[in-house]
Amino acid sequence: MSRALLVDLYELTMAASYHAEGMNGASTFELFIRELPPVRNYLVACGLEEALDYLVGLRFTKGDLAYLQTLDLFQPSFLDYLGDLRFTGDVWAVPEGEVVFATEPVLRVVGPLIEAQIVETFLLNCINFSTAVASKAARVATVCDGRSFVDFSARRDHGADAALLAARAAYLGGAAATSNVLAGQSFGIPLSGTMGHSYVLAFPDEAAAFRAFARRFPAGAVLLIDTFDTVRGARTAAAVAGELAAEGVVVRGVRIDSGDLAALAVAVRAILDEAGLPGLEIFASGDLDEYRIAALLDSGAPIDGFGVGTQLGTSGDAPALGGVYKLVEDLSGPKSKTSTGKATLPAVKQVYRLDEGGPGARDLIAPATAPAPPGGRPLLAPVMERGRRLGPPPALADGRARCRAALSALPSRVRSLEPARPGYEVEVAAELKVRRPDPPV
Amino acid sequence: MSRALLVDLYELTMAASYHAEGMNGASTFELFIRELPPVRNYLVACGLEEALDYLVGLRFTKGDLAYLQTLDLFQPSFLDYLGDLRFTGDVWAVPEGEVVFATEPVLRVVGPLIEAQIVETFLLNCINFSTAVASKAARVATVCDGRSFVDFSARRDHGADAALLAARAAYLGGAAATSNVLAGQSFGIPLSGTMGHSYVLAFPDEAAAFRAFARRFPAGAVLLIDTFDTVRGARTAAAVAGELAAEGVVVRGVRIDSGDLAALAVAVRAILDEAGLPGLEIFASGDLDEYRIAALLDSGAPIDGFGVGTQLGTSGDAPALGGVYKLVEDLSGPKSKTSTGKATLPAVKQVYRLDEGGPGARDLIAPATAPAPPGGRPLLAPVMERGRRLGPPPALADGRARCRAALSALPSRVRSLEPARPGYEVEVAAELKVRRPDPPV
Repeated sequence: MSRALLVDLYELTMAASYHAEGMNGASTFELFIRELPPVRNYLVACGLEEALDYLVGLRFTKGDLAYLQTLDLFQPSFLDYLGDLRFTGDVWAVPEGEVVFATEPVLRVVGPLIEAQIVETFLLNCINFSTAVASKAARVATVCDGRSFVDFSARRDHGADAALLAARAAYLGGAAATSNVLAGQSFGIPLSGTMGHSYVLAFPDEAAAFRAFARRFPAGAVLLIDTFDTVRGARTAAAVAGELAAEGVVVRGVRIDSGDLAALAVAVRAILDEAGLPGLEIFASGDLDEYRIAALLDSGAPIDGFGVGTQLGTSGDAPALGGVYKLVEDLSGPKSKTSTGKATLPAVKQVYRLDEGGPGARDLIAPATAPAPPGGRPLLAPVMERGRRLGPPPALADGRARCRAALSALPSRVRSLEPARPGYEVEVAAELKVRRPDPPV
Repeated sequence: MSRALLVDLYELTMAASYHAEGMNGASTFELFIRELPPVRNYLVACGLEEALDYLVGLRFTKGDLAYLQTLDLFQPSFLDYLGDLRFTGDVWAVPEGEVVFATEPVLRVVGPLIEAQIVETFLLNCINFSTAVASKAARVATVCDGRSFVDFSARRDHGADAALLAARAAYLGGAAATSNVLAGQSFGIPLSGTMGHSYVLAFPDEAAAFRAFARRFPAGAVLLIDTFDTVRGARTAAAVAGELAAEGVVVRGVRIDSGDLAALAVAVRAILDEAGLPGLEIFASGDLDEYRIAALLDSGAPIDGFGVGTQLGTSGDAPALGGVYKLVEDLSGPKSKTSTGKATLPAVKQVYRLDEGGPGARDLIAPATAPAPPGGRPLLAPVMERGRRLGPPPALADGRARCRAALSALPSRVRSLEPARPGYEVEVAAELKVRRPDPPV
């Protein structure tokens, strides 16, 4: 797949016009999320590594150019220019795992106008999606409160690539593991999995299925007990676990995937305990999200871990973020649009986090050229200079740790699942709010 | 990216157990959507071509096997087996573009148990997503009622691959074009695009931007008129269109991306008409979906075409479908699970469409072995035998035409945006509903 062609046509037609007009001066674009979805109090920045990987590798192949030629839109000189194009700009970014809010730039691209323009589509695509999933995962992590949850989303994600990226973003946001083997291979994320209903059905009876699986994976199988009747399945699992213990086979736990999970977990716990198996864990899955997990745990359901699929990998209640990428400054000065409801803030900006973890925690968006406010921690840092990364990609675990720290520093009303009233405070420096007249007609 | 590893870990642990147990007999799995989302009256089948492409190409590379070995879960004999594995089964499917309903199998996989099991994750992933987007696109198409709409979703889709697949599914469901250049190259979908706000901002004033763009694309530029003030922008566009006509430059239309689109379209239409430019078209975009488009057209807004992004490419109001893949029969006979709320129908099935386009339009799900009902059109047809496709991939345009025909044959209450009461009738043959006892403990 040519990532260079993963671009909206208008990026290329605009670029062709800039090229013809000789307009290619240094320009600064900022990427930010216009508004938080109503069901999000914060976002977790994610997708930067893929974005930088794209920028480093950006090039139009001969095949790409041949296709573009067939469109009868572009001059040969422009296509020649595209063939030589590499990304040579500078990038500042909020690191992955950091918590961010609406209107705060998470990425700043400074470079020749054409380069900085045509990367818009891909940058938005990868930041929007990974940030959405990492944010969802963080919400799940906060309610799990120490219990683990695993990404089970691959089958419901938006394509294979989405499944891979979702597993990564979910891990960064706090998932303990993923069922997605490719994500394990690609990112070193721990893998986890149990068995499916078809496995149980493929055997003459449940006990035969449990026995075969536990013996094959003697270090800690998890048995799926709801194919027919969950309570009966729990008794069978307990019997098999007891029977195989003598062989040195350890059954780690059972999974419940349907029915009234809270009531079943209580019943299953009692069966396992009565069978002298208090160490066997209970995992729950089946259309779970942070709200259902919170309700289960609030009810005291004895569940030790969760499989979370669809709602996590698609960020089901907020499946898209309104990320945008805007020209904020060029050689002629600061730029902004004044469209109704979609006006933008001009000038190159920095975001400062103030009084973290304290009662006055808030952010300030200020001109990048202004002095930093006392005690303010700048969120945007340089990550790429003249098209080259300033360092090796950080370990995914670092982003995951950053996320955990950022979440724990949030005011509790903001970390909560419920809409924060008031929301986290983001102040915009007065210099950025001066309304400049529209350009003349 | 190794598509073979885009698999849930449990597919491989189950397969390892089957392998060790010598269980690899012919098995039949069916893929179906358990329930329609509340905001869908029908679905448009899509994703089959990607699914077949995956099956044909399925193989575990040496690198894949080396990674699996590091997990300390699998015996060398199983990994050797995986290294030699190819998909050798048969596939029946509902063709892309056909309308389908809940519980109807859209794909049937018949093959040795291990092969048929491990393809579950990928098959669900690609059918679930493309079907979701094609269904959303079909809803947009029905309200556009002849006006065109274009997929603008790339920047908000779930990764680059999702953007590519979304463009394809949107086109199949009725979009006229896409802004996604890669989708144009990959699938021959027509491309469309206008200009962005940053383009207008990069020039000293709007008129200069419009002039430069129209001259560069003299066969039909579309000018974005809402960067500052839409009414003023319309006047500027009209002036530039008039001025450049003498040079042979044709301005095709204008785009409005913010504000009260209905009122602005009326005002802009009046300005263009007064300027003697009744042929200039008005395009609208900005967080549109089928509901907003229907409201705009109901209000009589003089809009000629729509750009639809986020909501289309993420199927925003139903971002995931509950597609599942279930073992329905093996050498020991029909299989079903009886889990609370998630019971499945046993036995290999066929779906018949009855009285299409008539007042008694309905579907029947029947055992594949039963005689076809009189006048019933079977929806599942063989597409792969012993791992080989039975024909070349059909043209995407064929699926698009099939979708249009299927939509027009739907009862109007089902085609409507509002929840159909009653929904489309899907009858399940009595033979499939006989409750068999659970297997013995």
